[in-house]
Amino acid sequence: MPPHHSRLSSAGRLAEFPLIEDLAGRFGATGRSVLIGIGDDAAILRPPSGDLFLLTTDLLAEGVHFDLTTATFEAIGYKAAVANLSDIAAMGGIPRYLLVSLAIPSGHTQAEIRRLYRGMISAGRPHRVELIGGDTSSSRQGLFINLTLAGTAKPDHILTRGGARVGDLLYVTGTLGDSLAGLQLLTGAQGRPVRAGTSLSKEARRYLVERHLQPTPRLAVGQLLAKHRLATSAIDLSDGLSGDLTHICKQSRVGAEVDMLTLPLSPACLDYAEAYRKNPFELALAGGEDYELLITVSPKNKTKVERLARSFGCRLSRIGRIRSRKRGLTVIGPDGSSHKLAITSYRHFEATSSVR
Amino acid sequence: MPPHHSRLSSAGRLAEFPLIEDLAGRFGATGRSVLIGIGDDAAILRPPSGDLFLLTTDLLAEGVHFDLTTATFEAIGYKAAVANLSDIAAMGGIPRYLLVSLAIPSGHTQAEIRRLYRGMISAGRPHRVELIGGDTSSSRQGLFINLTLAGTAKPDHILTRGGARVGDLLYVTGTLGDSLAGLQLLTGAQGRPVRAGTSLSKEARRYLVERHLQPTPRLAVGQLLAKHRLATSAIDLSDGLSGDLTHICKQSRVGAEVDMLTLPLSPACLDYAEAYRKNPFELALAGGEDYELLITVSPKNKTKVERLARSFGCRLSRIGRIRSRKRGLTVIGPDGSSHKLAITSYRHFEATSSVR
Repeated sequence: MPPHHSRLSSAGRLAEFPLIEDLAGRFGATGRSVLIGIGDDAAILRPPSGDLFLLTTDLLAEGVHFDLTTATFEAIGYKAAVANLSDIAAMGGIPRYLLVSLAIPSGHTQAEIRRLYRGMISAGRPHRVELIGGDTSSSRQGLFINLTLAGTAKPDHILTRGGARVGDLLYVTGTLGDSLAGLQLLTGAQGRPVRAGTSLSKEARRYLVERHLQPTPRLAVGQLLAKHRLATSAIDLSDGLSGDLTHICKQSRVGAEVDMLTLPLSPACLDYAEAYRKNPFELALAGGEDYELLITVSPKNKTKVERLARSFGCRLSRIGRIRSRKRGLTVIGPDGSSHKLAITSYRHFEATSSVR
Repeated sequence: MPPHHSRLSSAGRLAEFPLIEDLAGRFGATGRSVLIGIGDDAAILRPPSGDLFLLTTDLLAEGVHFDLTTATFEAIGYKAAVANLSDIAAMGGIPRYLLVSLAIPSGHTQAEIRRLYRGMISAGRPHRVELIGGDTSSSRQGLFINLTLAGTAKPDHILTRGGARVGDLLYVTGTLGDSLAGLQLLTGAQGRPVRAGTSLSKEARRYLVERHLQPTPRLAVGQLLAKHRLATSAIDLSDGLSGDLTHICKQSRVGAEVDMLTLPLSPACLDYAEAYRKNPFELALAGGEDYELLITVSPKNKTKVERLARSFGCRLSRIGRIRSRKRGLTVIGPDGSSHKLAITSYRHFEATSSVR
C-alpha cells in the first residue's frame, strides 16, 4: 500500500477522518533529502551520496508492550520511536526517515491518534527525523504499532554486534534498572514497602517513572564512538543487560564476565530497591528498556573512551570484560563468587513481576 | 528493536522456537549490497551509488485484510509481499530489501509461521528481494503482519502520482475485477447462480481465485515505463480503479473521464458476472487487489507505449483521458451517458458483498 493510504473507512469513529492529509500537514517531511514523502505509492529519498543505509523495525502490541491504562497515547508514541532511535544509536548512525503503521480498533478518537503521532514526532524531532509515510488500518482487537526507521552512516563509521574481541573492556552508558523500577511503580508490581516509613520519595518515584516513559536514545554517544572508532561492538539495552550481552557474545563468538558490583545504579533505583526489598543488581541485570548503550572497547582505547564520555557529560561505567567463548557468560557476585549468567530476557509490559 | 529480535517467549507454542536463527538460515539475505541483514540492531545496506531510495510499508490485520479460514498461510504471506512489490512497481523502481514484523497469537505452530514466510519469499524471489530483518512479537488477539519494502531507482527513472496533465490518455495493464470476483467465490459472497445450468466452469473459477490469491506485481512494466519516460503518472490498483484514480487526480490536480465500456475484463470475469448476475463494469471499477498499473500517457507517446506493451506481451487498455480539475471524475456509461464517478474504495476482505 502507499505510505499513509488509510483504510479506516470501517474503523468506527475514525471513519470520516481524513487522516492522511491531516498527518501530512502536521508532521510531514520537509527536508531536502525527501523528494516525496506521504502521498505516493512509496516515499522517495535521496540520502547523502556514498552513505550506508540503516533499516530497523519495531512492532508494539497492546497488552504485550504497552497498556493504555498505565500510559498515555503520547508516551506510547514517544517510546515506540525511542526503541527505533536507540537501534540506530547502537549502530552509530544518523536517524532520518520514519514510517508509521497503525492498526486501530474502533472507539479511539482522532485526538488520541494524533497524540500518538505527537509522541513519536517529539522523540524524533531533536534528531531531525522526518515522517515519510506509513499505513493505517482498522483492527478487530487491540492497537498495533509498527515503526520502521531508516538512517544513514558513513561506511567506516559504524558499530555492530560482531566485533568484540577477547580482552576487550565492557562498558555501559548511564544507569541500569531504572526503567524496570519505574514500570513496577506504574503497574503496582513493586509490592508494599518493607516497613512503614521507608516509602520512596516523590522525586525518586517521578525520576524512575520518567526513565520508564521517557528514555533517551544515546544517539550522540553512538555517533561519536563510531566516528572515532572507539568501540569494537555495541548494542542498545532494550531487553536487559543479560539478554543483550548474549547477543554481542553470539555475534562476536566470545564470552563475557560481568562484575555485578560495578553495575551503575541511580540513587533513585537504590532507594527503590531498599524500600521494596528488591535486589538492585538483579534489576540492573534483567531490567529492559533502559535504552543505554552496551559497548566493548579495546584496552588500548580505555583512556580515550573514558575521556570522550567525560567531555560529553555522559556517565560511562566499566562493568566487565570480554572472555573466550568457551568460558561463556559469567557474573562475579557481590561476594566475589563467580556464576553463570542467567539469560533472562525482559518481557516488556508483561513481565513486571518476574524480578524481585 | 533489532531486526528479528524475537519476543515470542510468551507466545504459547512458539515459546522455545529459535525463530531468528531459523529464519536467517532459511531466508536471510545473501546479496552483496547487504552488509548486515538479520541479527544486529539494524540492517546495513549499500545500495547502488547515486540511486534514489524507495520505502513503502503495509500493515495487514487478521479479519480486516485476510481470513485464515479462506486463505492459507502461504497465500497470506505471498499477497502481503505482492502488495508492497506492487507499490515499488508503481514507482518504476527495483524492489530490494524486505523487513517483516509479525504479532502472533498463541496457538500457531512453527510450521505455520514458516509457511507465512515461505509465501513472502516466493513472491519476492523472482525479483531478488532479500529478507534483511524484522520483529516478532506475541499478540493477545489476531495475527498482524507489517511488511516494509525498500527499493531503488535511478533519479531520472521514476513514476509518481503527481505528473498527469490535462489531455493525457489513461491506460491500465491486464484485466480488472478478477480479484474481487475470486474473493467473492472464496467467501461464498457470490450468491446463487441466476438459473440452474449457468454455473461457472471449474477453469474460470480457478482462474479468478488464483487472481485473488496470487496476483502478479507489474514490476517489469513499471520499470520500462519509467526508464523510457512513457508515463506521466502511475499508481497500482490496490484499492480499486475509482479509488486509486482519485489519488492520481488529487496529486496531479486534474480530473479524469473513464469510458466504462473500455474497461478490460477477462473471459472468466464475464462468465462470473453472467452466472451470478453481477455488473462486470462495477466489479472492474470498484474491485481492489488486482495489482495492475494505472498510468497516464501523453498523447504524443501513444504509439510508443502501446508498442512497448505489445512487445512485452502485456495487455494495455486505454480506458479514458485526463480532464481539467473542475470537471472532476466522470464515467461514460455503456449507454453513452456521463455521470460522476462514485468514489468507492475497496475494503479488502471485509467488503466482499458491497459490489453486486
